[in-house]
Amino acid sequence: MTKGKATRDAIVGQALHQAVTLGLDGLSVGGIAQSLPLSKSGVFAHFRSREALQLEVLDRAAAQFKAAVVLPAFAAPTGPDRVRALFTGYIDWMRDGAGAGGCLFVSAAQEFDDRPGLVRDRLVGIMHDWRDVVRNVVMTAAAPSCAFASDIEQAVFEFLALALGYQQSARLMGDRHAEARAHAGLNRMLAMLGAPA
Amino acid sequence: MTKGKATRDAIVGQALHQAVTLGLDGLSVGGIAQSLPLSKSGVFAHFRSREALQLEVLDRAAAQFKAAVVLPAFAAPTGPDRVRALFTGYIDWMRDGAGAGGCLFVSAAQEFDDRPGLVRDRLVGIMHDWRDVVRNVVMTAAAPSCAFASDIEQAVFEFLALALGYQQSARLMGDRHAEARAHAGLNRMLAMLGAPA
Repeated sequence: MTKGKATRDAIVGQALHQAVTLGLDGLSVGGIAQSLPLSKSGVFAHFRSREALQLEVLDRAAAQFKAAVVLPAFAAPTGPDRVRALFTGYIDWMRDGAGAGGCLFVSAAQEFDDRPGLVRDRLVGIMHDWRDVVRNVVMTAAAPSCAFASDIEQAVFEFLALALGYQQSARLMGDRHAEARAHAGLNRMLAMLGAPA
Repeated sequence: MTKGKATRDAIVGQALHQAVTLGLDGLSVGGIAQSLPLSKSGVFAHFRSREALQLEVLDRAAAQFKAAVVLPAFAAPTGPDRVRALFTGYIDWMRDGAGAGGCLFVSAAQEFDDRPGLVRDRLVGIMHDWRDVVRNVVMTAAAPSCAFASDIEQAVFEFLALALGYQQSARLMGDRHAEARAHAGLNRMLAMLGAPA
């Protein structure tokens, strides 16, 4: 890795760390420069704008997410086992992912859902990719009689909703049953799909 | 209303408007002062600190939430009808509540779930009150055979999770089926409680 590439890499790593704590919108080039340490113009030599850095942070987090959540789930056999593996990986990510600050994508969704622009577009793209993964995995668990597109979409919606419910219950409310409840909801969702237990 | 009370009221209203757009943490006393217009010291004459103003904003939003979501649902008969009325009111709030910027409590939960302090404590208190309301309403829909505490808590968890799923699907992903999917999930939750359709 060249020195330039290593510096760029360190900037993105520090920016991700900051974004997980303060939000993607709380990302400050001055703060990143100070903690590395670099000058602000040293950061801007690598990223022309704060927005360019925010996009890179999203891509870095998406790559971490793929390695931590998506790929391991594909080691499980198709069907309900793979759905559960993907869900467990997602719950673990929400608890510990990207530096124990919770899910960057969930907090960025809150920050950017009403702010049109490149950051929102990139975030929506990442979330679409994630929904595609969930959909493909859920489809392997559906009995032939339940494989209507609307059943699959309903299952995808509930998979994601249960994980969001977990995050709020566990992180904000300190509910120690949150994980068990999320899994109980998932089991009912799988039963709706006619998946064998 | 005295002039002092009216000014205080206007400050909180403007701060709530700002918090819905920029987040509770994005609240800037300078920005509020400018848009009223007042001097910054004029704002600080009413609120000793930015934190005191954030607490007042949460209380104002909670009062609006009670008037917009909770009280109307109590006009519906107890049982599944009241659960559906409460859920519909919550979904409407997430779409339009407190100035069309989405739910202040959901975004504040993302901002403050890992920041101990008075704001987090107040937010958790408001969310506990809201969960109590959901729990009490859900209990009226449970068949006697399903009235175990764990069933009720599971139903409360799913009620809240489905609404969070709605918010992300509708506001970020622009999914026009989000509301129907949230209601379909709620209906399955009610079936779990043994509620008559």
